[in-house]
Amino acid sequence: MSQRPYRVDVPLRWSDMDAYGHVNNVQFLRYLEDARVIGFQEWFGQDRSLLSEGVIVARHEIEYLAPLDFRHAPISVGMWATKVSGSSFSLAYEVRDPAEVGVVLYARAETMLVAYDFVSATPRRLRLDERTVLQGVSGDPVPFRWRERTS
Amino acid sequence: MSQRPYRVDVPLRWSDMDAYGHVNNVQFLRYLEDARVIGFQEWFGQDRSLLSEGVIVARHEIEYLAPLDFRHAPISVGMWATKVSGSSFSLAYEVRDPAEVGVVLYARAETMLVAYDFVSATPRRLRLDERTVLQGVSGDPVPFRWRERTS
Amino acid sequence: MSQRPYRVDVPLRWSDMDAYGHVNNVQFLRYLEDARVIGFQEWFGQDRSLLSEGVIVARHEIEYLAPLDFRHAPISVGMWATKVSGSSFSLAYEVRDPAEVGVVLYARAETMLVAYDFVSATPRRLRLDERTVLQGVSGDPVPFRWRERTS
Amino acid sequence: MSQRPYRVDVPLRWSDMDAYGHVNNVQFLRYLEDARVIGFQEWFGQDRSLLSEGVIVARHEIEYLAPLDFRHAPISVGMWATKVSGSSFSLAYEVRDPAEVGVVLYARAETMLVAYDFVSATPRRLRLDERTVLQGVSGDPVPFRWRERTS
Repeated sequence: MSQRPYRVDVPLRWSDMDAYGHVNNVQFLRYLEDARVIGFQEWFGQDRSLLSEGVIVARHEIEYLAPLDFRHAPISVGMWATKVSGSSFSLAYEVRDPAEVGVVLYARAETMLVAYDFVSATPRRLRLDERTVLQGVSGDPVPFRWRERTS
Repeated sequence: MSQRPYRVDVPLRWSDMDAYGHVNNVQFLRYLEDARVIGFQEWFGQDRSLLSEGVIVARHEIEYLAPLDFRHAPISVGMWATKVSGSSFSLAYEVRDPAEVGVVLYARAETMLVAYDFVSATPRRLRLDERTVLQGVSGDPVPFRWRERTS
Repeated sequence: MSQRPYRVDVPLRWSDMDAYGHVNNVQFLRYLEDARVIGFQEWFGQDRSLLSEGVIVARHEIEYLAPLDFRHAPISVGMWATKVSGSSFSLAYEVRDPAEVGVVLYARAETMLVAYDFVSATPRRLRLDERTVLQGVSGDPVPFRWRERTS
Repeated sequence: MSQRPYRVDVPLRWSDMDAYGHVNNVQFLRYLEDARVIGFQEWFGQDRSLLSEGVIVARHEIEYLAPLDFRHAPISVGMWATKVSGSSFSLAYEVRDPAEVGVVLYARAETMLVAYDFVSATPRRLRLDERTVLQGVSGDPVPFRWRERTS
């Protein structure tokens, strides 16, 4: 990627741990949700947020690379667009320690989002200003490790 | 797939809905977790459960095909093994209405699990009896719709 | 109480456990929420549910009496009304093993609910039919053990 | 109270909202849990945390005073001890806007905690240093509004 990903610090909660004493794998998807909520507000502005105008999650792919234990420091979610098409786009993520905390990479992930008109309950085309924003934060494909080994 | 998938009914909770009034996309991963917990006990037996002996989630892939609203009826998770290798295997899922409730397919998903020795904190080889069980529930690859369109 | 409380079976989820390996105390409130959703539909009918017409939670009180570990059997929530006033009422709960599973009492709790008009965003008076239903399921005060010892 | 309560900022998550579009009442208990985790580390020190030595939640009481909507600003949880006895103590909380955000009081609550020895699985007496810390953060009883009106 020619540019550094947009980074959002996401706080952990003690309850994110499961009975094994590590952050539960499902909670990582919560962190990505929080990162999107924070990131979209910065990218698209409070008034015309993609989130309120409407996107729906069509797909997630996530790989877990290291166990994460609860700590008071947040994790840092790097986020960039990987594909922008007529009515959908994909967001890539890296879940890492913040630079001042450590160097561990915990997970890589990608979410496909479809622009949606909640009034008519149908997909809609991305607006020009939305496409412009997304192209400005576009980056490389996610180097998934295990996709090839799957079906 | 030559055989019908193993099916587990998973109850919804009212709190699975998010502010949009639909079941939140992340909660689908909770349903898959519950389906594994129930299914593994039946497949591997209460005493030698893969879950207690140890597996860790290495990867999830999920596609959302229809919105799911809270209702008192459970959803039905069909589950089968798609790949069994030396120390890992993948589980495929279909999240559907139970037959007596409807015909909607809400999501397809796949989880890669790695057999793990929690005492030594290292991956371990699948035992012969575990491989035999998994081969007995093996089935076709998941017909994901959007994987090709991703990076 | 002159009558037996209304009983609702509520399923556990593996993720209800926290890092201590027991069902987390906060998740008990989720069980009460699920019990209300199921119970109110039976008490008030699907079409004119108190929940959709509107109630808001004004207060919870809960005492934990025994640790609960995840198991496949549900817990049984007994539920009855303790106070019915002009625009609010209280629900009492006992969280127990279902009779066929055991005899442990895990928690006692009480929730105060205020009837609410979501359109005008103000409290409203309970309708006569709502009061009649609630009086039909009324019962004794909750025998809290520790309330006296608190402030 | 003769002193100002200890204050902890707790971040919200978008998923704390329920289908009504407000922060769900149960999630407030999560905020209190997070406040305890942060506060106890400061009060008791990282090495001899009450949490790791062991406390269990015996009781919660909470009153909801104003609806809370998701926003990027955290809520501020004020926290102080209200009772310290041989093997238990109570924590009081006020859930407010941080001073720089607003003046709304969202909830008052109290939790009774019992000191616990997880090795022997029995209650234990509070240590002298624990009692000293708790007495140093003691304050007034919680001015609950609705306790009298309950059973």
